[in-house]
Amino acid sequence: MEKRQNGEAKKKEEEPKDSICGYDSLHLLLKDNLNPQHFQEVSRLLTGLNCGKAIETIALPESATALSVKHGFDLQAFSFSADKELLREPRVVRVGLIQNSIALPTTAHFADQKKAIFEKLKPIIEAAGSSGVNILCLQEAWMMPFAFCTREKRWCEFAEPVDGESTRFLQSFALKYNMVIISSILERDINHGEVIWNTSVVIGNHGNIIGKHRKNHIPRVGDFNESTYYMEGNTGHPVFETVYGKIAINICYGRHHPLNWLAFGLNGAEIVFNPSATVGELSEPMWPIEARNAAIANSYFVASINRVGTETFPNAFTSGDGKPAHADFGHFYGSSYVSAPDASCTPSLSRYRDGLLVTDMDLNLCRQLKDKWGFRMTSRYELYADTLARYVKPEFEPQVITDPLLHRKAS
Amino acid sequence: MEKRQNGEAKKKEEEPKDSICGYDSLHLLLKDNLNPQHFQEVSRLLTGLNCGKAIETIALPESATALSVKHGFDLQAFSFSADKELLREPRVVRVGLIQNSIALPTTAHFADQKKAIFEKLKPIIEAAGSSGVNILCLQEAWMMPFAFCTREKRWCEFAEPVDGESTRFLQSFALKYNMVIISSILERDINHGEVIWNTSVVIGNHGNIIGKHRKNHIPRVGDFNESTYYMEGNTGHPVFETVYGKIAINICYGRHHPLNWLAFGLNGAEIVFNPSATVGELSEPMWPIEARNAAIANSYFVASINRVGTETFPNAFTSGDGKPAHADFGHFYGSSYVSAPDASCTPSLSRYRDGLLVTDMDLNLCRQLKDKWGFRMTSRYELYADTLARYVKPEFEPQVITDPLLHRKAS
Repeated sequence: MEKRQNGEAKKKEEEPKDSICGYDSLHLLLKDNLNPQHFQEVSRLLTGLNCGKAIETIALPESATALSVKHGFDLQAFSFSADKELLREPRVVRVGLIQNSIALPTTAHFADQKKAIFEKLKPIIEAAGSSGVNILCLQEAWMMPFAFCTREKRWCEFAEPVDGESTRFLQSFALKYNMVIISSILERDINHGEVIWNTSVVIGNHGNIIGKHRKNHIPRVGDFNESTYYMEGNTGHPVFETVYGKIAINICYGRHHPLNWLAFGLNGAEIVFNPSATVGELSEPMWPIEARNAAIANSYFVASINRVGTETFPNAFTSGDGKPAHADFGHFYGSSYVSAPDASCTPSLSRYRDGLLVTDMDLNLCRQLKDKWGFRMTSRYELYADTLARYVKPEFEPQVITDPLLHRKAS
Repeated sequence: MEKRQNGEAKKKEEEPKDSICGYDSLHLLLKDNLNPQHFQEVSRLLTGLNCGKAIETIALPESATALSVKHGFDLQAFSFSADKELLREPRVVRVGLIQNSIALPTTAHFADQKKAIFEKLKPIIEAAGSSGVNILCLQEAWMMPFAFCTREKRWCEFAEPVDGESTRFLQSFALKYNMVIISSILERDINHGEVIWNTSVVIGNHGNIIGKHRKNHIPRVGDFNESTYYMEGNTGHPVFETVYGKIAINICYGRHHPLNWLAFGLNGAEIVFNPSATVGELSEPMWPIEARNAAIANSYFVASINRVGTETFPNAFTSGDGKPAHADFGHFYGSSYVSAPDASCTPSLSRYRDGLLVTDMDLNLCRQLKDKWGFRMTSRYELYADTLARYVKPEFEPQVITDPLLHRKAS
């Protein structure tokens, strides 16, 4: 059994009702219950591991593992490999993903709730920093409960300008550890009538703000009443050129939109982060599919983060397909992981616990896969530019070939 | 353990070297080696089964199961469910997918090879017909070995016009069983200089030819030297309106192109068939990902078929990343399956044996998922029509935000 770098003893007591058979992640459920040969074959089929280049676990410094044990967060670390090239040096980047539950009940004073999340995240960010993480990404709207299920506008108080206190909190770590940090917040746009956005701020490794991206696609599904709070983003599909590589952010529901993934690829992204907040009953079977598909189709790495835990709100609410009024959003199932362009992926973090996933990736793999599979070259974008231009016109007529014998009875 | 409707006894003797731990499909490997509770949870996570509406096995007539036992092909049957609507009747369609190996060595006379495949397929098609299949789809280029690895042009002799002998062979079954049949052939276009295409012919339930579609994206990867034989298709993204619903065909390598899937959806497809020929070493970890992603993203069913077996050719050939000259293409891993728009999917057919997969699906599920998730409505196609139109221009400049401190040393 592989070395688990974290306080596994904590697992049992923290399992919520949602856990029907006492497991921490799909990876461990399979590893602990199949014989090694079967596990290896299942891994090959499901995750591309041992298919070509195998993914490997990597050792982290004692300071990081000690923090994970002390604070009880999941800590896992893997390395993707790439072919050695003759004309380019490897460009290995260490990426860190943090998933976490909120820290205080949603009934606590908003200032206390935010401060408690800051305090909870500190040791996890320190573990990332001391592990030499180059690019760190937090989950969607990490500085607040995911209160958009309620449709109550008072949660807008959590919103901050791009250079607000959550950004300042992270800027100090960016500077201290020479890390790029992607911070997804609820944004208050003070220069445009104080409107609200769902925004990722990109903080450079000198603690500077490089820029922001606003969520392009907004859900209207189940309890995800986000369209009550903010509109579709107006920042296009920016790729941020950092000292560690070209990165982009596809926020949460945008992962269901292949064109959104595509546009970040067309602009040159090598790693696309997908900070999310999504619950088991709604999306869990999609979670291992969409990010991996995006990584394959666009020849880049995808880093997926989902928050953890069940958040209960003071007032019951309705939505979501006629369910009776309820006060929680369901279980945010964590399971953060990284997908590579060669169709392999890391195991996922815990479904239940806070966690830090550290992954080494050689960005040269992106172009290697472009050359191998040729998806970009064979994509016939002219054809689709024309199709979409025609489709968006109200008078669009689909290309349908109708069986001329459609209404003849079967002989 | 669920009832296996086929001659399981045959399994062992037919296992090729590729089988490292004696299993027939991923589904059975997990089912036979995990306890029922673990298996159920793994199924929920991996295939959406038991998540909301569960997929169920269905019983087929004795005549069909007898054929599978007699001829040793895998036979499995499942049913997806959908919500009952108040204003529309259910539109349940029974879909059949056939996967098969070739029947004679590739050194046999071409006429004999083709005839032997016809003979081998007859009982499988009869089983589909007697099972009440409404729409039947065969694998890519089912009437020949997948000889495009060789780059030898003599295999072009297998090509036929759209109304050639392979079509005529299937037309009789379409008429006999009131089935729509999708037949993917190597096409000889006699009206345009006898050029070659990779084409799917759609045969109506009266035995008539409704139309054809030509493969849109042509691979240049590994031993897939198909671009030596035929060019990118010129038939757009047709949707065929049949008596059983609106269907389209995304041939093989087109499954790696999200825009290809999208365009069939924009034209109104409810089921997209993906007749394929692909080998384990190259694509197997992608196989459970791309079709499911397409079904989710486009709110339609996807039916994936891959051929079976290892085909050895008379002359060794080279290609594929500097591998030494070799005479076979690797193992075609079968594993045909169906994906639903709600992120669920059927188990896959055998990795090793010929097979028929029968699946009932209520096409009402497509619109139900559109209404639930709203992907089409939230897709912002105007934005992407503009992005693609700009991208295809040689002077396109990607949207990149460069860290102004990119070249400053870390403090």
